[in-house]
Amino acid sequence: MPAYRTPLRDMRFLLDEVYDFASHYPRLTGVETVDRTLLDGVLEEVARFTEQELFPLNLSGDLEGCRLENGVVSTPRGFKQAYAEFVAGGWTAITGAPEWGGQGLPASVGMLVEELTMTTNLAWAMYPALSHGAMNALEVHGTDEQKDVYLRQLHSGAWTGTMCLTEPHCGSDVGLVRTRAELRADGSYAINGTKIFISAGEHDLAENIVHLVLARLPDAPAGTKGISMFIVPKYLPEGGGIGERNGVSCASLEEKMGIHGNATCVLNFDDAQGWLVGEENKGMRCMFTMMNAARLVVGLQGLGQAEAAYQASTAYALEREQMRALSGPVAPDRPADPIIVHPDVRRMLLTQKALTEGCRALAYHAGMQQDLARNGADPEARALGQKQIDLLTPIVKGFLTEMAMECTNHAVQIFGGHGFIREHGVEQYVRDTRITLIYEGTTQIQALDLIGRKVLFDGGAALTALIAEIEATCAEHRGDEALARYVAEVSRLAAEWGELATDLGRRGMENPDEVGAGAVDFLMYSGYVLLAWCWLRMMAAARQSTQAADAFYTGKLQTGDFFFRRLLPRSALLAATIRDGSDALLSMPAEAFTR
Amino acid sequence: MPAYRTPLRDMRFLLDEVYDFASHYPRLTGVETVDRTLLDGVLEEVARFTEQELFPLNLSGDLEGCRLENGVVSTPRGFKQAYAEFVAGGWTAITGAPEWGGQGLPASVGMLVEELTMTTNLAWAMYPALSHGAMNALEVHGTDEQKDVYLRQLHSGAWTGTMCLTEPHCGSDVGLVRTRAELRADGSYAINGTKIFISAGEHDLAENIVHLVLARLPDAPAGTKGISMFIVPKYLPEGGGIGERNGVSCASLEEKMGIHGNATCVLNFDDAQGWLVGEENKGMRCMFTMMNAARLVVGLQGLGQAEAAYQASTAYALEREQMRALSGPVAPDRPADPIIVHPDVRRMLLTQKALTEGCRALAYHAGMQQDLARNGADPEARALGQKQIDLLTPIVKGFLTEMAMECTNHAVQIFGGHGFIREHGVEQYVRDTRITLIYEGTTQIQALDLIGRKVLFDGGAALTALIAEIEATCAEHRGDEALARYVAEVSRLAAEWGELATDLGRRGMENPDEVGAGAVDFLMYSGYVLLAWCWLRMMAAARQSTQAADAFYTGKLQTGDFFFRRLLPRSALLAATIRDGSDALLSMPAEAFTR
Repeated sequence: MPAYRTPLRDMRFLLDEVYDFASHYPRLTGVETVDRTLLDGVLEEVARFTEQELFPLNLSGDLEGCRLENGVVSTPRGFKQAYAEFVAGGWTAITGAPEWGGQGLPASVGMLVEELTMTTNLAWAMYPALSHGAMNALEVHGTDEQKDVYLRQLHSGAWTGTMCLTEPHCGSDVGLVRTRAELRADGSYAINGTKIFISAGEHDLAENIVHLVLARLPDAPAGTKGISMFIVPKYLPEGGGIGERNGVSCASLEEKMGIHGNATCVLNFDDAQGWLVGEENKGMRCMFTMMNAARLVVGLQGLGQAEAAYQASTAYALEREQMRALSGPVAPDRPADPIIVHPDVRRMLLTQKALTEGCRALAYHAGMQQDLARNGADPEARALGQKQIDLLTPIVKGFLTEMAMECTNHAVQIFGGHGFIREHGVEQYVRDTRITLIYEGTTQIQALDLIGRKVLFDGGAALTALIAEIEATCAEHRGDEALARYVAEVSRLAAEWGELATDLGRRGMENPDEVGAGAVDFLMYSGYVLLAWCWLRMMAAARQSTQAADAFYTGKLQTGDFFFRRLLPRSALLAATIRDGSDALLSMPAEAFTR
Repeated sequence: MPAYRTPLRDMRFLLDEVYDFASHYPRLTGVETVDRTLLDGVLEEVARFTEQELFPLNLSGDLEGCRLENGVVSTPRGFKQAYAEFVAGGWTAITGAPEWGGQGLPASVGMLVEELTMTTNLAWAMYPALSHGAMNALEVHGTDEQKDVYLRQLHSGAWTGTMCLTEPHCGSDVGLVRTRAELRADGSYAINGTKIFISAGEHDLAENIVHLVLARLPDAPAGTKGISMFIVPKYLPEGGGIGERNGVSCASLEEKMGIHGNATCVLNFDDAQGWLVGEENKGMRCMFTMMNAARLVVGLQGLGQAEAAYQASTAYALEREQMRALSGPVAPDRPADPIIVHPDVRRMLLTQKALTEGCRALAYHAGMQQDLARNGADPEARALGQKQIDLLTPIVKGFLTEMAMECTNHAVQIFGGHGFIREHGVEQYVRDTRITLIYEGTTQIQALDLIGRKVLFDGGAALTALIAEIEATCAEHRGDEALARYVAEVSRLAAEWGELATDLGRRGMENPDEVGAGAVDFLMYSGYVLLAWCWLRMMAAARQSTQAADAFYTGKLQTGDFFFRRLLPRSALLAATIRDGSDALLSMPAEAFTR
């Protein structure tokens, strides 16, 4: 089993020294009582649970996987007990509304819990995480009766949820959904069709599963304008508990590259009874409510996997002895030096450290924006928070997962041959991470969402506001000689970010493919700029610490410097390719690709 | 099963139009009779075998894996029959010396065979490939008697070979080997120890397995100067066949990320009888003979996996329909457009195409250098060829495998969720490719070999010669207006390549860590420069074609242009980090890495 402990020091550094969460909550409405004591209590309890209960089940869950027998799915050994403990601890809905049994804590606190579960056992953590999407959708779009029947059960964790979107012929393009919904005499609907890739679609953790299903009414218009959302429970609700089995069943489990401990199901709906959520043909709105929160969580999955991989490879690099340092033995009494003496091992470790810590800082910033959107003191504050979290969501999802792929691969490389075998659990991080770049919208879908819906659609207002915030940070630290070159770089990039967006928008008016061609590079560019901003804030906080001699703070400053010197220059390449336009991509005829 | 057919058109373009192999062979000694007819015959027969026999076993072999029962390893269904057919076809030693039953064909022809077997079934192809290393080592370092006993059997494929280097505590650092060899009265040695990660270490394809084992004599000096190599057959040779079972056994099979069809063994040597190869304590020389050829083959593995992944994702992109082109429907009669209309799908396909075709061109160039080294017309030609293949080997190994990792990941991304499940066989390419960056020396080991042993050790002579060759290509095409910008870029980079090497050497004299810090970036930089050179040659050949209207040639020119515009600029980042030095990597204290 790889080495792991909760990165509490780094988390607290952000919470206390960089963002000062203790003074953030009192500025909100409805969560003013959240203080450092509460935060510490949450962190310590979740740290214990995830280190001691979830982490030991990560490798065994991967090796064992899920089993389907006679329509019943068994999760790996220990998953059920861990879920029961999670439920007993009241963790399933800590951000949920108290009226349904939630704890009413702010989104940023829920994020800390999700980060740590995703770090220690991604496959397991998806079971409770999928419920959140269902809760969000029902809270916003459900009828009072639906809320009454389903929300309490989902909040308590007695029931879990799913998102049933994908069908064999449609993934990214949900407008092609064919699953049919026909009105029945009692006002409910008969649902027929097949859904694939349904995470947590069938399992033995909870007594019931609430499927939120995209389907099409008989007279629905074609495309996304004809999609409706339905609640389709595995067991029909009855008297506050469960009644008859509904017509939904797991036809098979997908064999897949990773997340073996999560049941990825083919679900058949055979005259299953369902109930409309929201309005007819307005299912896309419900889906986005469900999806947007889920996208942030997937970003946390990337962050978590990268953290776990970083810790494993750091421990290995300090312990594994191979060859001597080029500049002479560092441990002359040992048969060889620890591999952390080798510059390229350090390059890989520093890359992981700089990206992981930067991504964590970005995630927590996003968490604060989520808090503002939900609990801002006034409508204006809430609107601003919502604007920014809308803008950040595709970046957090897309960039954090792409970075996680790079980081987990470095971890395997540091382990060498021992990284390729399953025993050490490191190659699992690569396999588990791989899906995070795909589900809940691929990097490519995030990129189009970012530049199209989140940047250009509002004429760049949200981006302009964020750039102003970045510029304010720069202004604050411009006087600090030691930070001058970082400040100058962040300031320059923030301005360039706006220019690139304007330029893409201008070119896109003439040719929409220009936007498509630059979208992914723009998303990645955005990620690097935001990480530079986060690193500047972390470096400033580290310099202000009274314990400046502590290796933690010198490490922060050096890691930040590494980020600016070695990783941030990638933004120049991205800016150049965005400017290069669509011609290099589109001029080749499709047949010239075929061998 | 993913789509695949032998990339004959691209292979023949290189053989005929870019490099003109038909006029290359007559300039060599001993292989003058190799002509286009022979090449075509080889290509067609290997294409048939690999498409029809090996490729269908790739996915099933991955799903099934190898089994160990009572010390006996069973390979996946069909592997044994395919190997028997390969043996019957005389393919196991087509480059081997006729006196041992080889066909005496040049190295470049063997490379084509290896490329196609590695493309279609990496796990299977490793069984015969491992034999090559053993053959090379014995041919150069074996006694006449050893050659007589072993080489004929290895050449015929009746026996296979292995390389037994790694032990639990030593991988990259073979100087730490602990396996013991003690002289016995009859002049043979008793071998005791445990080797791990032994590919093809035990299997059911051949009647005997010839292990080449690194071990240490009782009085051997410490480190690499005390390593000797031994032949340790699974069955002792007797009367031209096999006799008693030797004291070597498979203790377990590693469970691993990929190459499930290849048996990765823990081998126990218990008083196994072995015979010294070469001189006592000079085992490293034997190892490098074995290893250098193997490293080129691993580069071909990367190329092959990237090719297979490219083909699969191209076919999928042409067939899968999701969403409309941003600039309006391309297939209005269909429910959606094929995803190849989306610019970012094209970016990923073009990246794969440009890298795969560029890497193939580099591999074939390396193949010609191998031919020169072995069959050059005079000693000077052979020495020059040897110098260049020595220089190219770590680049081909390191760069082609790193590129393959990028390419196979793009293929998964194009498949989306369907790429993550095992059914389509695309995620397997990522998992199988992952080991190629590690075994036979990690990218990091290749990088140190390149800058240290291959560039700086001879004062840059080999590099200078290669740069002159590149400059000659530039001079040849400088008059072609259409190629002007590519020529200028290649010429500039070739010069910069030399400067970077000189600079690293100069800084390394004061601080060896400077070399270690820049090594991997220098290797990657070298790869991009060489690919630019290869693309220039391909573009020039495409322009000279009489069938210029053929989509193949326009595709070549456009793919080359994409390489120069979108991928080659990465070299600027690499040059900058090489120049940035070791400080950013080494200044942080080791304890600051730990959480």
